[in-house]
Amino acid sequence: MTNTIEVRNPRTGKFDYVIIPPPPRLLAQQCNRARRAQTQWYQLGLEGRIAALREWKEAILAARQSLTDALVNDTGRLSISILEIDSFFSSIDRWCDLAPDLLQESAKNTSIPFIALQQTSVPYPLVGVISPWNFPLLLSMIDAIPALLAGCAVVIKPSEIAPRFVAPLLTSLNNVANLRDVLIFIEGAGETGAALIDYVDLICFTGSVNTGRRVAEAAARRFIPAFLELGGKDPAIVLASANIDLATSAILWGAVVNTGQSCLSIERVYVAESIFEEFYHQLVAKAYSLQLAYPDIENGQIGPIIAEKQAAIISDHLADAVEKGAIIHCGGKVEELGGGWWCRPTVLTQVNHAMKVMTEETFGPIMPVMPFSNVEEAVFLANDSIFGLSAAVFAGSEAEALAVGRQINAGAISINDAALTAIMHEGEKNAFKLSSLGGSRMGGAALTRFMRKQAFLIKTNSAHDPWWFNQE
Amino acid sequence: MTNTIEVRNPRTGKFDYVIIPPPPRLLAQQCNRARRAQTQWYQLGLEGRIAALREWKEAILAARQSLTDALVNDTGRLSISILEIDSFFSSIDRWCDLAPDLLQESAKNTSIPFIALQQTSVPYPLVGVISPWNFPLLLSMIDAIPALLAGCAVVIKPSEIAPRFVAPLLTSLNNVANLRDVLIFIEGAGETGAALIDYVDLICFTGSVNTGRRVAEAAARRFIPAFLELGGKDPAIVLASANIDLATSAILWGAVVNTGQSCLSIERVYVAESIFEEFYHQLVAKAYSLQLAYPDIENGQIGPIIAEKQAAIISDHLADAVEKGAIIHCGGKVEELGGGWWCRPTVLTQVNHAMKVMTEETFGPIMPVMPFSNVEEAVFLANDSIFGLSAAVFAGSEAEALAVGRQINAGAISINDAALTAIMHEGEKNAFKLSSLGGSRMGGAALTRFMRKQAFLIKTNSAHDPWWFNQE
Repeated sequence: MTNTIEVRNPRTGKFDYVIIPPPPRLLAQQCNRARRAQTQWYQLGLEGRIAALREWKEAILAARQSLTDALVNDTGRLSISILEIDSFFSSIDRWCDLAPDLLQESAKNTSIPFIALQQTSVPYPLVGVISPWNFPLLLSMIDAIPALLAGCAVVIKPSEIAPRFVAPLLTSLNNVANLRDVLIFIEGAGETGAALIDYVDLICFTGSVNTGRRVAEAAARRFIPAFLELGGKDPAIVLASANIDLATSAILWGAVVNTGQSCLSIERVYVAESIFEEFYHQLVAKAYSLQLAYPDIENGQIGPIIAEKQAAIISDHLADAVEKGAIIHCGGKVEELGGGWWCRPTVLTQVNHAMKVMTEETFGPIMPVMPFSNVEEAVFLANDSIFGLSAAVFAGSEAEALAVGRQINAGAISINDAALTAIMHEGEKNAFKLSSLGGSRMGGAALTRFMRKQAFLIKTNSAHDPWWFNQE
Repeated sequence: MTNTIEVRNPRTGKFDYVIIPPPPRLLAQQCNRARRAQTQWYQLGLEGRIAALREWKEAILAARQSLTDALVNDTGRLSISILEIDSFFSSIDRWCDLAPDLLQESAKNTSIPFIALQQTSVPYPLVGVISPWNFPLLLSMIDAIPALLAGCAVVIKPSEIAPRFVAPLLTSLNNVANLRDVLIFIEGAGETGAALIDYVDLICFTGSVNTGRRVAEAAARRFIPAFLELGGKDPAIVLASANIDLATSAILWGAVVNTGQSCLSIERVYVAESIFEEFYHQLVAKAYSLQLAYPDIENGQIGPIIAEKQAAIISDHLADAVEKGAIIHCGGKVEELGGGWWCRPTVLTQVNHAMKVMTEETFGPIMPVMPFSNVEEAVFLANDSIFGLSAAVFAGSEAEALAVGRQINAGAISINDAALTAIMHEGEKNAFKLSSLGGSRMGGAALTRFMRKQAFLIKTNSAHDPWWFNQE
């Protein structure tokens, strides 16, 4: 008796794919298999692990088309699916290049004579990854690749909303003897994710605040580290001195790329009142230049809304804003086309913090723009949020923008551009408030967090002089 | 209507001290006061914070006798109270010396042209510390000193079993204008500790697994980092090649110093069967040389059992072991002397892992010694525990001991000595299993964990080229 889960196609609205969550015994079996295989994986050494990952990359390259097709069906978008696969490949290369330095063991000086210190790191044997639907491939591998290089086995539970990409990955994995036993995919929804936490030594989760809280509590009960990347409501601040053309292009990109379905997309825009009119007119004009990728998936920049429940949230936020006095300058509604849900880039003014569109995560191509009269007000508004993931500041000079950026409670601040963490992963960051928990998934820490530090304290002479022998 | 808590004196058994937990409103007020004062504390800069801590140290030095008296009444011991105060002073000096390097901001190279990265760190504004009774001063300050240097305000809730040391600290704090508003002590028991978690941005806890689990879950609900240091059942392995004289002295020290009331004390001893007889005879002989510090607190090495509930646990573990066939060679009972509870150094043989004394935390001066026939068995026994805090390995050579030590699932491994983390704090470590959660409280990470990393990603040219402009 198994419960199947039907999966909706975001372009057609049809349920045209099925996944089967593993019964509890099978899940346990798969996790135990990965845990057993981890010993050998770790003993392979870093060079062996790098070789296996590069071999896998070649195998995926050979089956690239089937992976693209699966991602297109998962997300309804073409160009971003291609980008996602490219980014996945470059992340394998990047981590393989970085790992040797990050895994160096070290001997350190100590302040106590006759005690030497050797610092080593050992991987958490089994890492669980619960990943979301908005970038199905990238966000399931962003934690998995560094974890594998660290020497962990990894079990991934992708979102039940976009699980088609798994099948072609599994096919390519079959050819990589060393890797296939330590990189496991399981299908399922929330129940399967919750069950997974009980089998692993460390859990990574990307998703909503509410589910994240349950993950964090379950991990706390077991004393295992939890790395959560949750929601955002990223603000952009545009100061009076900013290059308006640059700011509108960057903010438009940061807000509507992937139809706004990124945790780090710009969801609120605060503009100095002296340039407010010019700014939003330009933003609206540029927004009009973007097209839905419908009916032809190869033309247009705006894809369908992937998750049906998200379409309802976007509609609700827009209706709430309009009811409270917001004005829509373009876009402004969620429409059904050929069975899918679509929303054109939407610019709103006359908005305020009583509206959901300024306070809750919308996850759509929505740009509410609000004027501010001085920098203090802009900073106050940017920080007036339950989230603190990232932010952007535009000004005429780096220094002016940085001075404002340093007052914002967020983990990553883009200066004179938007959402730069989407393309540059070197910066370590810890988001504020409800946006994350646990160490940085960017920068070197993204790999070292999968390892436990061990200290070997070596007595180098053979005397033992406890305090009581010196006492009298 | 306030509920007072009466505090027992561990030497007399008398309840001779009273603490008053703050009513909820007062707790909120104190936390808010510390949070407000933190802004100025951080803006003081590191030099200002170092100056304030050094000034406090001088003020405590001037009132040293009253702090010693309070700690003696809290713990019933003299020489360790003196050691505790000395260690506290040297930890202030050590952290003041280390902090400037650890708080360096950095500019990093990035792999993307026209994007510069500035990495900065900002302190979590308000840190909570819930500390235990076994080293009341040291374990309340071990987290607080680096947190203060990082720029945090700190609210400490010491154990209700040993809270007397707070009064003299407060007196000395009164003279340090910058520090007194950001280092707050609150009195109370579990309920007050639980309430504290709701006001802080990060929580440090040292104590039992059960309470630690509640702390971790409460922190998870609020998405705040939790750093837990919990129980241990640290094993020592003595290989056939070991220097027996060194091993018995070191293990005796590691097991009975502070009457075994340390999380990192040796609680299980595994000895190669070829030297087993000689080892335990020598251990017993050395154990007999130690005396209770009773009635004269200035003579003898073994102090009273501080917590009455712990005396009951030690008795229970000894009774359970004897009932299951263990043989007691010295010590072996918890006795009442002058109203306090005492236990002499106790060596047991004929022990096994069906006994509580080999599996649960005893927290007394108890040394169960068990022979092993080969290294695999020794490693298996050492790892056969729900805990993984630290361990010790003794062998004729460093290399032989290290090879065994590397197979032990524990955060810190002493080689040819015991419990070296008690005196050397440079090694970063993450304990295994139920012994801890969160980053290392030793090494440089002990300070940097109180800071959030922020990444400033700076676009250094003024072009914005989103993917869709390059697409066609």
